[in-house]
Amino acid sequence: MRRSRKAISAMLRLHHHPMSAASRFARLILGEYGERAELVEEKPWERRREFLALNPAATLPVLIEDDGPPIVGGLVIAEYLDETRGIYQRDRRLMAEKPIERAEIRRLSEWFVNKLESEVTRYLVRERVFKLDMKVEHGGGPPDASAIRAARANLKNHMRYIGWLAESRDWLAGPRISQADLAAASALSVLDYLGEVDWDREGAAKDWYQRLKSRPSFRPFLAERIRGIPPVAHYAELDF
Amino acid sequence: MRRSRKAISAMLRLHHHPMSAASRFARLILGEYGERAELVEEKPWERRREFLALNPAATLPVLIEDDGPPIVGGLVIAEYLDETRGIYQRDRRLMAEKPIERAEIRRLSEWFVNKLESEVTRYLVRERVFKLDMKVEHGGGPPDASAIRAARANLKNHMRYIGWLAESRDWLAGPRISQADLAAASALSVLDYLGEVDWDREGAAKDWYQRLKSRPSFRPFLAERIRGIPPVAHYAELDF
Repeated sequence: MRRSRKAISAMLRLHHHPMSAASRFARLILGEYGERAELVEEKPWERRREFLALNPAATLPVLIEDDGPPIVGGLVIAEYLDETRGIYQRDRRLMAEKPIERAEIRRLSEWFVNKLESEVTRYLVRERVFKLDMKVEHGGGPPDASAIRAARANLKNHMRYIGWLAESRDWLAGPRISQADLAAASALSVLDYLGEVDWDREGAAKDWYQRLKSRPSFRPFLAERIRGIPPVAHYAELDF
Repeated sequence: MRRSRKAISAMLRLHHHPMSAASRFARLILGEYGERAELVEEKPWERRREFLALNPAATLPVLIEDDGPPIVGGLVIAEYLDETRGIYQRDRRLMAEKPIERAEIRRLSEWFVNKLESEVTRYLVRERVFKLDMKVEHGGGPPDASAIRAARANLKNHMRYIGWLAESRDWLAGPRISQADLAAASALSVLDYLGEVDWDREGAAKDWYQRLKSRPSFRPFLAERIRGIPPVAHYAELDF
């Protein structure tokens, strides 16, 4: 009894940024598993010395449990939380049991955390949000219109793919909700804040996103505001 | 008895390219676990219709077991092989038992499969190898000297990091060999073929690589030759 109590009250600290999709991914998983973490906001472009010591790649998020070694990156954190929380959750576990089904969940988690990020989210967030806050020596300056254009074109293809997945399956990776859904939704929540998502073109994707948006783990995002950038009008509406 | 025999003789097929670092990563893990896979060479830039049906991201490698659904990407394949082979291997398992140690193995595996790839290996292989074989409509043409220069500059930083890891630990992710070592070595074996690695600057990295190079799982690479591109003189030497 003592043991499990200790596990429940473990100290978790998440280095994150509110507009980092992978950080939101980690927060959604923590939320789904009923864990609270202390949130430390990082501006990775500043390459703070103490942050680089945690993660020399200078990427977000980074999770620390009980002052242990850093757990680095959205996908690595997802695996860690599955191994330390998910396996005790039965119906609420965000991973399948069978290796071949786990492979599909991982493929799509990687797709959204890495591919969607590097083709779409990174550019739109950098050009439209981070640059407002960046000094010139950190890469600040006017937004790069051609990067924004390319990212928007790429987003159309990603939305088609999400729409296709949402149409052909109950959840993106199969019959049950999984971390792949949270990986996709975390990126879309950032893009939606910025008004970049054309929901009306992809009805199945919209239905799927509405189901996720109404989960309690999602609620904190809907209340967050970035200074100087108000969200799109429907951002916090569950029925949009 | 029947069951385990069937598991041992499972049909594995790997879609790969000999100069794809992530493909070599999958082949090294298969080799370490004593598995043979049928190798199907893919030229991902051709976007072959049957290959896109396996992996719409058009990336390598893709593993198929017993005509099952595709297992996509080096990291996903590594997890799959750990769950279906590694857990039965005890001392030869390429993953640690403890979640926090697994997180470090995964951090570094991701580092080499994604970060080293996207900052170094992808450019050098594309410009120096794939372009010789690419039609203009697939992106062929003369090598881009500035991409090569940038990749070479980035490689110096990665070599310093590998040298530092090799100096401070027995193996890159800790006291035991793990998939993180194979992830790094697979990329370096590709770069070494092309003569891009300056081993003399990083003695600890060289010692570490020599240990890996002499493992039986590595042997097939040392015999492979790319048409039109002979390897650097020391490529196949165990004592270089």
